[in-house]
Amino acid sequence: MTDWQPQQKGTARTMRVEILCTGDEILTGKTVNTNYSHIARRLGEVGLDVIWGTTVGDDRASLLAAFRLAGERADAVIVNGGLGPTVDDLSQEVAAEACGVPLVLSEYWLQRMTESYARRGRVMPANNRKQAMLPEGAEFIDNPIGTACGFAVTIGKARFFFTPGVPREMRRMVDEQVIPRLLKLGGITGVTRLKRFHSFGIGESRADEMLAGIPGLAIDGEVKLGFQAHYPQLETKLAARGADAADLAARLAPVEAEVRRRLGNFIVAEDDQTLEGVVLGKLLAGAHTLAIAETFTGGTIAARLAPLVGAEAVFKRGVVTRSLPEGGASGEAAAGVAASLRQDTGASHALAVLVQLDEGADRPDFGATIAVGIADAHGTVSRQARLVGGRDWVRVGAVELGLDCLRRHLFDLPVDERIDFERR
Amino acid sequence: MTDWQPQQKGTARTMRVEILCTGDEILTGKTVNTNYSHIARRLGEVGLDVIWGTTVGDDRASLLAAFRLAGERADAVIVNGGLGPTVDDLSQEVAAEACGVPLVLSEYWLQRMTESYARRGRVMPANNRKQAMLPEGAEFIDNPIGTACGFAVTIGKARFFFTPGVPREMRRMVDEQVIPRLLKLGGITGVTRLKRFHSFGIGESRADEMLAGIPGLAIDGEVKLGFQAHYPQLETKLAARGADAADLAARLAPVEAEVRRRLGNFIVAEDDQTLEGVVLGKLLAGAHTLAIAETFTGGTIAARLAPLVGAEAVFKRGVVTRSLPEGGASGEAAAGVAASLRQDTGASHALAVLVQLDEGADRPDFGATIAVGIADAHGTVSRQARLVGGRDWVRVGAVELGLDCLRRHLFDLPVDERIDFERR
Repeated sequence: MTDWQPQQKGTARTMRVEILCTGDEILTGKTVNTNYSHIARRLGEVGLDVIWGTTVGDDRASLLAAFRLAGERADAVIVNGGLGPTVDDLSQEVAAEACGVPLVLSEYWLQRMTESYARRGRVMPANNRKQAMLPEGAEFIDNPIGTACGFAVTIGKARFFFTPGVPREMRRMVDEQVIPRLLKLGGITGVTRLKRFHSFGIGESRADEMLAGIPGLAIDGEVKLGFQAHYPQLETKLAARGADAADLAARLAPVEAEVRRRLGNFIVAEDDQTLEGVVLGKLLAGAHTLAIAETFTGGTIAARLAPLVGAEAVFKRGVVTRSLPEGGASGEAAAGVAASLRQDTGASHALAVLVQLDEGADRPDFGATIAVGIADAHGTVSRQARLVGGRDWVRVGAVELGLDCLRRHLFDLPVDERIDFERR
Repeated sequence: MTDWQPQQKGTARTMRVEILCTGDEILTGKTVNTNYSHIARRLGEVGLDVIWGTTVGDDRASLLAAFRLAGERADAVIVNGGLGPTVDDLSQEVAAEACGVPLVLSEYWLQRMTESYARRGRVMPANNRKQAMLPEGAEFIDNPIGTACGFAVTIGKARFFFTPGVPREMRRMVDEQVIPRLLKLGGITGVTRLKRFHSFGIGESRADEMLAGIPGLAIDGEVKLGFQAHYPQLETKLAARGADAADLAARLAPVEAEVRRRLGNFIVAEDDQTLEGVVLGKLLAGAHTLAIAETFTGGTIAARLAPLVGAEAVFKRGVVTRSLPEGGASGEAAAGVAASLRQDTGASHALAVLVQLDEGADRPDFGATIAVGIADAHGTVSRQARLVGGRDWVRVGAVELGLDCLRRHLFDLPVDERIDFERR
């Protein structure tokens, strides 16, 4: 493969990273490979580009061939899976074969596993010993929450990092152990952070326009911008790197503030917050209570709020019907439903979301008129919108619109700002 | 790579198939690669094993290298993506390069595209012409629902099938065009069918035991058994092959009947049916109406039924509260709630699902007691169960348990049959 020359994207990125996923469950499609997309995204967020992805099964010959090919192409390879205690799990063995070394027992990891079982009052099963067998000379990589430790070896001209297939163990190991080593390997110093904004009502291309030209937000600037659309929300991500925590904060703060200013009222939550969590938090903070009336959304709005921790103090009642009041899905009708629901339940706040579906069968341009009404001690507000895109699209959009109107009302923001999904 | 010998699994399977996914969105992890898992599963279901998966970006050198490597290893390769009208889409160009032939215009496909735009009263954009450029000598593969046609060429010793990245177009092309060609290539004749059973209440290992030893259901028999667990449901699949439709039906019918007999009351739906669809169908058939009361499930049970087509005639009302009635989550209390809900709403049937959560924070062994009550003209029935596994697990299980109890009641089946997820 001497004619193979990887294309370089971006500028300061010289390291070629590959991801190699192992396991029959992944290879046969029984399990969707979300580990791959997680690892690739996380690497992208710290400025490392993945150039190749490989999937092979629990099969010695395929694993060996895949290790050797990746070792010819890449500078670094993240291997995921195959570190378990059963005979199917071949990663250590094949790694040792590829390196031409024997497997040797890590007394340290065996003891850690034994102690971990003992703390839970159990005896370690004999086959777990296999998980402490590492290729001779391998660099040990800690797994603080599982029995599959990671390790690193060199095969061909690439450094290979072996990670467990269990998602939560993999995620933690990639963040805490692998990424710092990759950055070091690539001569990239400093600390990184990912800041996330969740918005409702703007599409990816408009958000891109709205954020154009922010100083420090150039493609090769210190802060990298990315989007991930999961309708009806859009996630806007700022990946930043700095020499240390203080430097990072100093770089990120002005960009963060500018994003917040430009996306404005459309930001429904940040980082690990959710729209429903923000709404619940505001209701709790005000010692408010809430009742919800729904039609075609069929309980989904209530289902976003009612199961949350703390909702038992706020959530008074949800009501679902499939019939609309007189007046159909008008703003007035929705305000009326909210006002009487508030009265009936004694809740301080009531939200009504009425959906008038188009006639006929589901189709790509199937639409609905949505009316949202909110009642509180000061009276009622309402808003009407038309969404188009098929039954499910409309239903999911109506849920978000209802929750977002309530958020906007609680935070004294305009409830009737036009959203991108809306038709007039 | 002369030392590379793929492992053969199963017996009559001699064809080595690879899947090669292209595109920066997939490579960078921005999009989770569900196309891969769909293709791999579908191939497995017709008896074709995937031996290798590759992901590369929209990058000429990587694509060429990936085509050549797969052409050395495999008998057949399914390539997904890169057939669009933009400059990023490189599959045809790189395929032509790998074959050492020029791209030539398919007058036929150009005309089909032009007509398709004309039918919608539009003029075909100029850059769509690119989609009619195929490697010289390529076999044309039809796409009845999109502008990206497929094609097949030979690279190395493998036959390559190029498919579009748009999921619905890819799915149809794989089923109707690619799989028949692969089966022919592999000398596998006849027709195939996938029969699916959806069950609630049994885990994969118990289902496997329950179905052991069914005649004709051997690992090398005519009918292949597979499972896919998506808690709380389990999907049991029978993949069958026959000389023709009549032969296939004759082979499948007795196995199908035996699976239905053994899994019995746990089967909630078959093929494209859903549990909620079966419940709604039975209520509609009996001209019944329904009201639902929920607690911690927060509207999710109503949300499964209320948005369905036809539900407007059946669904009277859903009520969500976060407080339990006197008596907590007891069978009696649930029956009482259902009876009074039926009275209040005038519905012929009422379902109540009460959930009493454990104390304390969420944790892996966090559990709840669930009481289901059903009222109809003949009186009430109830059932209580304890589920354990964290807040979300319990919530999702309670939703399914409630819907399944209603199904069982409507079909005169016992509502209190023990399920695998239950603790006593």
